[in-house]
Amino acid sequence: MTRPIHVHLLPALFEPADLRGGVAVVIDVLRATSTIVHALAAGAQAVIPCGEIEEARRIASQAPAGTVLLGGERKGLRIPGFDLGNSPDEYTSHVVARKKIVMTTTNGTRALLRAREARRVLIGALSNESAVVEQLAAETGPVHLVCAGTDGKITLEDTLCGGGIAHWLDLAAADAFPADDATRLAMILFDSCGRDYDRVHEERVLATLRQSLGGKNLIECGLGADIVTCAEQDKFAVVPELFVHDWEIRAAR
Amino acid sequence: MTRPIHVHLLPALFEPADLRGGVAVVIDVLRATSTIVHALAAGAQAVIPCGEIEEARRIASQAPAGTVLLGGERKGLRIPGFDLGNSPDEYTSHVVARKKIVMTTTNGTRALLRAREARRVLIGALSNESAVVEQLAAETGPVHLVCAGTDGKITLEDTLCGGGIAHWLDLAAADAFPADDATRLAMILFDSCGRDYDRVHEERVLATLRQSLGGKNLIECGLGADIVTCAEQDKFAVVPELFVHDWEIRAAR
Repeated sequence: MTRPIHVHLLPALFEPADLRGGVAVVIDVLRATSTIVHALAAGAQAVIPCGEIEEARRIASQAPAGTVLLGGERKGLRIPGFDLGNSPDEYTSHVVARKKIVMTTTNGTRALLRAREARRVLIGALSNESAVVEQLAAETGPVHLVCAGTDGKITLEDTLCGGGIAHWLDLAAADAFPADDATRLAMILFDSCGRDYDRVHEERVLATLRQSLGGKNLIECGLGADIVTCAEQDKFAVVPELFVHDWEIRAAR
Repeated sequence: MTRPIHVHLLPALFEPADLRGGVAVVIDVLRATSTIVHALAAGAQAVIPCGEIEEARRIASQAPAGTVLLGGERKGLRIPGFDLGNSPDEYTSHVVARKKIVMTTTNGTRALLRAREARRVLIGALSNESAVVEQLAAETGPVHLVCAGTDGKITLEDTLCGGGIAHWLDLAAADAFPADDATRLAMILFDSCGRDYDRVHEERVLATLRQSLGGKNLIECGLGADIVTCAEQDKFAVVPELFVHDWEIRAAR
């Protein structure tokens, strides 16, 4: 049986109700979902995504002392008074193990909110692409790969990641899946980096991230090293999942 | 001086006011803008685009007898009582020379309406790509390539045409232009067909159109021959332009 897979190049390009009954993967490669993958892989207990700084501070202040860290960014930079910014490399096990992270990012949180009607909401990045594909292959129903974009603009890095997941899932499927044009476009972008995970592929993925709007913004902020970290593929086997009922992101089972 | 070029993958992905001072090119390869190029190349005096069938009938009924033809489609097919459908090959000089065509198409007209605040609104298709590039190269100010899409969905054929125009304009420019991520995505799609106008390029363009949503719909309607016509590149030197003050599309000077 064929199974529809959709890459949505922006959260605004679908209606929330379209995702009912399906499995969504929210993708914000530079950097929210890459950082969430790093945080859970480093042993953080959960990530609590929220849109506003004051909301993050309020949630953190209600938790027992020492159990919660505040993380996130505005315009790429750490928020004053927060424990962590949005660089995946900050989220080491030394810092985050057994902690909950209250994290505020604009584009990532907006995408999660819009995807919340899906039956399951997973979190994807280049760093856990294969693990996401495995989870999806074990699931049934339509797949929705939701690219977060940046301030309503399509981004290359999210499209690339969505195209990669669609490509590997297509290979894993018994039948070719019916792909819409946006999905094909994302897969063609992935193809343009080479289909094999070799040195050429890695270099092209990194180059794509560097020339993207988000990549250029990070370089301007002096955070170019984050691009290298976010471009690393399949470093982790963890698949973060948003549990909508308590609004926490924890490792999927 | 660098000059911004934007491929907008859908009309909804920009604000009309963003186009002020710039030159817009509206692209609906399957089939509205391909048909408009064919109509003017065949000697039609003007095309009057309108969104509603009743509006088209009213405009036509107010014109002197024998000066106007009604053209357009709904769900791919000719509208009952209309003289012409939306197949470019119907618009021969024998039929349309010296006539005005009142044409109603959904996606193309919507895109034209949204682009109307630009300083100039040109009409592009694969069939007049080089002529459009020439017009744009002779102009100043930002360039906005507006992909019409289909019912709010991104389409491969419009993205491909936008990517091609951006590619050739980039080559013609003295400096590299700053491209946003959607524009790069469109250019990568164009690249995936091969950059040279050879047999391989032609075949890949045709294959891209055939596998697109719009292409598949046309094949289902028995209108697959239109895809071949719309895939032909640089057949005509005419650049249709929408003159917003009298809402007529005529050949640009």
